[in-house]
Amino acid sequence: MAVGRQPNELPQVLVLSPPAIFTSLESQFSIRFHMLKPWDSKLPLLQFLTSYAQSVPAMLVVPGDRLLVNSAILDCLPSLKLVVTTSAGVDHLDVAELRRRGVAIAYAGNLFSQDVADMAVGLLIDVLRNVSAGDRFVRLGLWPTQRDFPLALKLSGKQIGIVGLGKIGTEVAKRLEGFGCRISYNSRTKKPLVSYSYYSNVHELAANCEALIICCGLTAETRHMIDREVMVALGKDGVIINVGRGAIVDETELIRCLIQGEIRGAGLDVFENDPEIPKELFNLDNVVLSPHVAVLTTESMVGLTQLALGNLEAFFSNKPLVSPYVD
Amino acid sequence: MAVGRQPNELPQVLVLSPPAIFTSLESQFSIRFHMLKPWDSKLPLLQFLTSYAQSVPAMLVVPGDRLLVNSAILDCLPSLKLVVTTSAGVDHLDVAELRRRGVAIAYAGNLFSQDVADMAVGLLIDVLRNVSAGDRFVRLGLWPTQRDFPLALKLSGKQIGIVGLGKIGTEVAKRLEGFGCRISYNSRTKKPLVSYSYYSNVHELAANCEALIICCGLTAETRHMIDREVMVALGKDGVIINVGRGAIVDETELIRCLIQGEIRGAGLDVFENDPEIPKELFNLDNVVLSPHVAVLTTESMVGLTQLALGNLEAFFSNKPLVSPYVD
Repeated sequence: MAVGRQPNELPQVLVLSPPAIFTSLESQFSIRFHMLKPWDSKLPLLQFLTSYAQSVPAMLVVPGDRLLVNSAILDCLPSLKLVVTTSAGVDHLDVAELRRRGVAIAYAGNLFSQDVADMAVGLLIDVLRNVSAGDRFVRLGLWPTQRDFPLALKLSGKQIGIVGLGKIGTEVAKRLEGFGCRISYNSRTKKPLVSYSYYSNVHELAANCEALIICCGLTAETRHMIDREVMVALGKDGVIINVGRGAIVDETELIRCLIQGEIRGAGLDVFENDPEIPKELFNLDNVVLSPHVAVLTTESMVGLTQLALGNLEAFFSNKPLVSPYVD
Repeated sequence: MAVGRQPNELPQVLVLSPPAIFTSLESQFSIRFHMLKPWDSKLPLLQFLTSYAQSVPAMLVVPGDRLLVNSAILDCLPSLKLVVTTSAGVDHLDVAELRRRGVAIAYAGNLFSQDVADMAVGLLIDVLRNVSAGDRFVRLGLWPTQRDFPLALKLSGKQIGIVGLGKIGTEVAKRLEGFGCRISYNSRTKKPLVSYSYYSNVHELAANCEALIICCGLTAETRHMIDREVMVALGKDGVIINVGRGAIVDETELIRCLIQGEIRGAGLDVFENDPEIPKELFNLDNVVLSPHVAVLTTESMVGLTQLALGNLEAFFSNKPLVSPYVD
């Protein structure tokens, strides 16, 4: 809509934190909007916002490094009416405070569900079948000399427990049915149209399955939900895959269980303090460590750019948001 | 049937090459059969066979290191009536020569199909989504400092070409349908009951898909079938997964295409000269190297032991073999 205008005539959009993933796609934003970039300034963030962002109506947030959109930031943005976040999770936003101030939220919605589900299944196969460990074994030149590479566990037919049967969990289940896996799940409420076995309690789910795949969001209720008791219930051949948020798992206990063989292994795309990872994990062959990239594919970045642009353009045209966040 | 007899009263079974994978299961054989183990002797193999195996009726073969059951070996085994091999492929057996001599063959049949299919899908996700490369990136401590981990490719919805739609290829297709992939295939003949797109020519298949998964056996016809022309047709975003046999792919050309970016990546469980691997592969981030373990799971080894025992017991009881190899 605004293509062709001079930058200072374009609608203002504040971008919070350098959008690394947008580097190659940034031009698509800057021809439509005047992008305010605090990281290009020498001023501290809050001072920059107070000086330059008083009239900014919309903000683009690319979550990272413990960024939290809180009252301190919002106090500097009195004209803010929209936050567009590029993630499916909103734990980096103070949603209640945004609601109170009448700021609308657009998010990535289900855009990443397939990619995250693909990664969850990839991590599960990797942990059970020692794929990364095998690759390491070969690259260390151990194959011709040291023939005792450990035996793997079979995936086909396994009983898999999905924690959080939302869009991602449902996509994971659909994929694992193709492997002949039996699916059970835990969520706040039983899904009426789903035939998988439901456990209202994650401890019971763990006791009745061979792998747990964590697909839920991080909330006060889910923080450290996967605790020692759940891991012990899962048992020594059990596997934990986490594509949700790091803090859903008690990481200290997870590391202890992995070292002591109380569970078989883990595949982790997220950690309690991304991108800092406890160094003890680096020496373990029974974990697969992924740098929080479950959502990152070339295809999803193109889709995300379109979605973020669509939300901003809808907002500035007084149309309904394309992907509004609803609690 | 023979449990309780003294070793020298038990039926004789020659074991060719140390059955590393049987180590923990060997006792199940040795209580039923008198196992002749050439590797326990200081004699060269052929001399051992000539000295001790003249009356041996059955042989267990665990394929490895370019072992070939050929005329030289068979000439030393005039009483041989059965070869039980523990693999699904029979390229380590001179099948024509065994047939000519009236030696029956039992093999692993479809026992490994699910495990191999699981591994094929795991390698495909790993290559597209950089799973092993991501694990390496994290373990090198690069995550917090070097944020430009390369973008992955999406799996969901991709057009996948399966080379060889036998039992393994069919299991791979079934799994990938759960990811919303579109399946096409190449095989000697079109399968009448299959709805996937058929290409009689592997070059055309490559030109019309984004990943090739090699699931066929190694024969004179399939040796180096995946040549430079096929790789170029697959294209620079194309991926090759090989869970068949190494020599189906022209490995020298594959390495060249990987280095020059003429294809995107490869996931390899097999190599032309297992367990020797060209060292150039070790420096590439766009390959996943697996030490020929697609069939190796705790569950498959238990199943394989049962199947091998079943074939040997059937043979010594004059009953039909459980899993005879049929050309």
